[in-house]
Amino acid sequence: MRHIISVLVENEFGVLAKVSGLFSGRGFNIESLCVAETADPTVSRITLVTSGDDRVLEQITKHLNKLVNVIQVCDFSGASHVERELVLVKVAAEPRTRGEVLNVVDIFRGKVVDVAAGSYVLEVTGTSDKVKAFIDLVKPYGILEIVRTGIVAMVRGGAVLAATAQEEKPAVTVDAGHEGRIAREGSQADFV
Amino acid sequence: MRHIISVLVENEFGVLAKVSGLFSGRGFNIESLCVAETADPTVSRITLVTSGDDRVLEQITKHLNKLVNVIQVCDFSGASHVERELVLVKVAAEPRTRGEVLNVVDIFRGKVVDVAAGSYVLEVTGTSDKVKAFIDLVKPYGILEIVRTGIVAMVRGGAVLAATAQEEKPAVTVDAGHEGRIAREGSQADFV
Repeated sequence: MRHIISVLVENEFGVLAKVSGLFSGRGFNIESLCVAETADPTVSRITLVTSGDDRVLEQITKHLNKLVNVIQVCDFSGASHVERELVLVKVAAEPRTRGEVLNVVDIFRGKVVDVAAGSYVLEVTGTSDKVKAFIDLVKPYGILEIVRTGIVAMVRGGAVLAATAQEEKPAVTVDAGHEGRIAREGSQADFV
Repeated sequence: MRHIISVLVENEFGVLAKVSGLFSGRGFNIESLCVAETADPTVSRITLVTSGDDRVLEQITKHLNKLVNVIQVCDFSGASHVERELVLVKVAAEPRTRGEVLNVVDIFRGKVVDVAAGSYVLEVTGTSDKVKAFIDLVKPYGILEIVRTGIVAMVRGGAVLAATAQEEKPAVTVDAGHEGRIAREGSQADFV
């Protein structure tokens, strides 16, 4: 089963090597991984995607929790969450195909971030499925280069994963259940 | 000096641990790192940001090139390139501040990806500076949680970093110099 796991760690040398080593040492391939600092610059957040036997993964999670530099571990499987990924695609753009490429970008609410004589660099964000659908659609025009960030995720609603319970205003009420997510997301149009 | 480095690697166990270990072993902290697969699923692309002594970094790059699973290494310093990052921010949204938060999101061309009773999850993409400016602007409303992907980068123009010279159509002409990048990017409005 595919798992998205967030790990809050102290922003120090070698923590990433330790965390990723724990997965590879047990035969888990990391499909994607992101790490960057949070609002508190002493704390970094690792988000990784892996798949494999659930029991072994539970062991890995326990091991992670024991590491000195690890503050918190969260497996998003089963939890209602938002996941997003950014992709940059350099695609061949000949005069006769440019208009079509731009149409695809508009439909996916993407952006053109660079233009050269024979190519565009396109930016799209979304779930892995949306990114995959976009890549499949521009493939016929000729993909020259791709770079993806990999997935980042966040629990929906008021529940919070942070080194301190809340990083700024502690006055906000936090409730795990909510109903408001229809607002701007979830329509068919937003998916494509 | 700050360096953005892309490393094309074979998509296998333990490669990430090896690459990140090479940096931490020499006292280089990795500020951010992303890894995900490319158009060819056997090849992954690591993008990392680090800073430190240029000569030591050159040694690390040479070591990287010697690793069996490393296909290609590229340091973007000095090269004209596009860099992008995605951030998800869960921000407190009380009835009287919601409108203001939405205004900030619109100005940054961001999206609201989740709504709960007392909070929004916002998505913004851009350079590190733009993301930092956005975080600073929403901070007064109360940041509950942040997750950033870290930087991904791509050389501007037709030059390509890929495992094979070009992944799909080999017929496209590739030239490193170009003048077209004003098209949709670079205006003041796009930055903010």
